[in-house]
Amino acid sequence: MNDLSPNALQALQAELGDIPVITDPVIVRRRSRDFFWYSPVLNEQLNGLSADLIVSPRTEEEVIRVAAACARHRVPLTVRAGGTGNYGQAVPLKGGVLLDITALSVIDWVKPGVLRVGAGAKMNVIDAELAPKGWELRMHPSTKRTATIGGFVAGGSGGIGSVTYGGLRESGNILAARVVTLEPEPRVIELRGDAAQKINRAYGTTGIITALEMPLAPAWPWIDVVVTFDSFMEAATFGYETALSDGIVKKLLAPITWPLPSYFGALKPYCPEGKSILIAMIAEPSLESFKALLAGRGTITLETPTDDSAGNVPLYEYTWNHTTLQVLKADRSVTYLQCLYPHDRVLEKVEQMRAMFPDEVLQHLEFIRFAGKVTSSALPVVRYTTADRLDEIIRLHEANEVFVANPHVYTVEDGSRYKRVDADQLGFKHEIDPMGLLNPGKMRSFVPKNP
Amino acid sequence: MNDLSPNALQALQAELGDIPVITDPVIVRRRSRDFFWYSPVLNEQLNGLSADLIVSPRTEEEVIRVAAACARHRVPLTVRAGGTGNYGQAVPLKGGVLLDITALSVIDWVKPGVLRVGAGAKMNVIDAELAPKGWELRMHPSTKRTATIGGFVAGGSGGIGSVTYGGLRESGNILAARVVTLEPEPRVIELRGDAAQKINRAYGTTGIITALEMPLAPAWPWIDVVVTFDSFMEAATFGYETALSDGIVKKLLAPITWPLPSYFGALKPYCPEGKSILIAMIAEPSLESFKALLAGRGTITLETPTDDSAGNVPLYEYTWNHTTLQVLKADRSVTYLQCLYPHDRVLEKVEQMRAMFPDEVLQHLEFIRFAGKVTSSALPVVRYTTADRLDEIIRLHEANEVFVANPHVYTVEDGSRYKRVDADQLGFKHEIDPMGLLNPGKMRSFVPKNP
Repeated sequence: MNDLSPNALQALQAELGDIPVITDPVIVRRRSRDFFWYSPVLNEQLNGLSADLIVSPRTEEEVIRVAAACARHRVPLTVRAGGTGNYGQAVPLKGGVLLDITALSVIDWVKPGVLRVGAGAKMNVIDAELAPKGWELRMHPSTKRTATIGGFVAGGSGGIGSVTYGGLRESGNILAARVVTLEPEPRVIELRGDAAQKINRAYGTTGIITALEMPLAPAWPWIDVVVTFDSFMEAATFGYETALSDGIVKKLLAPITWPLPSYFGALKPYCPEGKSILIAMIAEPSLESFKALLAGRGTITLETPTDDSAGNVPLYEYTWNHTTLQVLKADRSVTYLQCLYPHDRVLEKVEQMRAMFPDEVLQHLEFIRFAGKVTSSALPVVRYTTADRLDEIIRLHEANEVFVANPHVYTVEDGSRYKRVDADQLGFKHEIDPMGLLNPGKMRSFVPKNP
Repeated sequence: MNDLSPNALQALQAELGDIPVITDPVIVRRRSRDFFWYSPVLNEQLNGLSADLIVSPRTEEEVIRVAAACARHRVPLTVRAGGTGNYGQAVPLKGGVLLDITALSVIDWVKPGVLRVGAGAKMNVIDAELAPKGWELRMHPSTKRTATIGGFVAGGSGGIGSVTYGGLRESGNILAARVVTLEPEPRVIELRGDAAQKINRAYGTTGIITALEMPLAPAWPWIDVVVTFDSFMEAATFGYETALSDGIVKKLLAPITWPLPSYFGALKPYCPEGKSILIAMIAEPSLESFKALLAGRGTITLETPTDDSAGNVPLYEYTWNHTTLQVLKADRSVTYLQCLYPHDRVLEKVEQMRAMFPDEVLQHLEFIRFAGKVTSSALPVVRYTTADRLDEIIRLHEANEVFVANPHVYTVEDGSRYKRVDADQLGFKHEIDPMGLLNPGKMRSFVPKNP
């Protein structure tokens, strides 16, 4: 399947010493997957692809040894942590080493407002450690309970918390990243400030992230709230008003159209038949103001402290791409889109898309700040028919000024706004991965000068 | 001067028992003033106006006794605290009682994110009490070191902190107010949520505020920063970019054009000749990101922890209306405006106003959030010639979509956006001050049904 010579792999493995390695093909194949199967298109392209072996370094020093060995033997290396991505970003297209970095999970230090942590630390573990100190991560994906901070930064763009802090791309949302290069004698580079953006959403193609310095938010006692509405546009309108209310402290505002809540398992008792809902996380001291703003327009059916400890299902696991997952559990015929609405006509455009695809695109918005403005991203659930029709739906959104970050492609470029990679990222890759061995094929514009 | 009968005043005073009263005309006249003299127009209209006596209740119970006595004897009552307003809001137009509420300064309680406090508490005292608990007020005026929380809510609209939380008018920025009515048998009314807006910026015409419940912000270690730029538009552009950066935690962003910094006394060593400046308050953990965003476009000449304890001058005392004050100290021929720029064309409109009044209107912006959007308010220093020319300047701003909240008028209506009072406030005044005795003349639309 992969075009690596068995000799290269054997030679590589011989150099790894006591660094843990897994070669059992069943395990390797299983761990070579992520959640790309949300996309029927990606599922067809990526299903069955696999690394040749899993290597699990326990220290940065061991990461360096693996990187050196891969460079010397020309073996591709794809970093993998929680494997919660949806774009196949952790799927090795050309075999080789799957680098499991989840053992790099030590919190180096916590200062007021700043954290230094190993890239493999799970985000829920980080937040649990921070809570007694009064801090929390500014944002996390809906997969917080399994995702790592390194995977989020390498593969994500924002999430729960972005309604207040914007996305990872905003100045100040990644303070520094430490990366190991893929060279015979790997270097360790500290990227600070803007430079840290070189590893944001590059799928691990621009260096092996070993540690991150992340800004923190003051931890609030969050309340999970479900509000039900007669119509989706009422839920969207109230969500938008709340997003614009700078006096109300919030972390999540997700309007979701009926019938999506009918798929919401344990949450169904709080989702009456026919009602669209807003899922919100509101700071406890702002709850009274949130209700005053609601002013009886919707009905609160659930109000409970956010609890994402073991055995509990927090409300955010019905939002962002978990909304899609909740539906997929019952109906594998659906897929989804990722949209960004124009900030100056959010509700108008939502209504227009709703009218254009009444039963085919089931709306689910996520209010966020983007470049300093309140707008709505959206992860609507799409009743899938064909890849052509999916392309057509994307085209019709974009023709109407609703930008789509296509989640049915696996390269950095194709999933980006301008269908190209950031020049800084591309230039940096030439510096730190001259042979193009890091997650090869994911940054398609990259052509190694020294293959 | 006042048309109250000496008998009414004597009868009133006889009912006050041991509540402290001051009748010394020199003291009463001095305390009947606020900072209206920033406006040459108001100075002509309000100079010399005075209450007849100062009454200083120590408890809400004593406030009720004063209110009852005023109602029975038809004596006007004007509430006064720090007297730091600029619109003559604490100047009694018709004599009577000046109610000094500064003794109502007890902090009732502090909960995570919420404070309950007497209306007469000084804001710097409140913040000093909150700091060890990790909290602070969300916003304060540049007069924080002398202003009270009640005066700020009754006469202000926002200030330092509004770049993050918006103004007092935003949902959630005033949680509750407790007011005493002006009736023979005064009632005590608790206004919660939206209802609390009935006392916001009503100049004490809609009830005597005795206590407030205010939302709190997590306290950051703030850094006072001065950045100098070759041109004002560079300072404004960088300030705007920072305001839009949701990943950078800030409390103040004030671009100020040269030559205004030449008036800045103790700050002059940090304000080089000919340079426009940006005054900023940045959370210490965000300082690195702030500098990365600056990217060498300006020069940081001062960077020091914010210190507003006794004997220190924090940088915010060069911003908001303190900018005007700093100039007035040396040059009494200037005055100022209060502008609100349209959020979708901030910099374009700033440049246009600059070109229109190059030497007459010296620009000073304050970035804020307003209705969920980043925009700029502005308090430019105006070289004053005549009242007619001042009106003309205001008219020309408004003709170009720069709204002016006229600070050269003393009624609630004339200083407001739509030149009218909020219907809720007007209706509420009928309920709680049927004879129109609270700060009479300040809500000019009000005509007592029962005078």
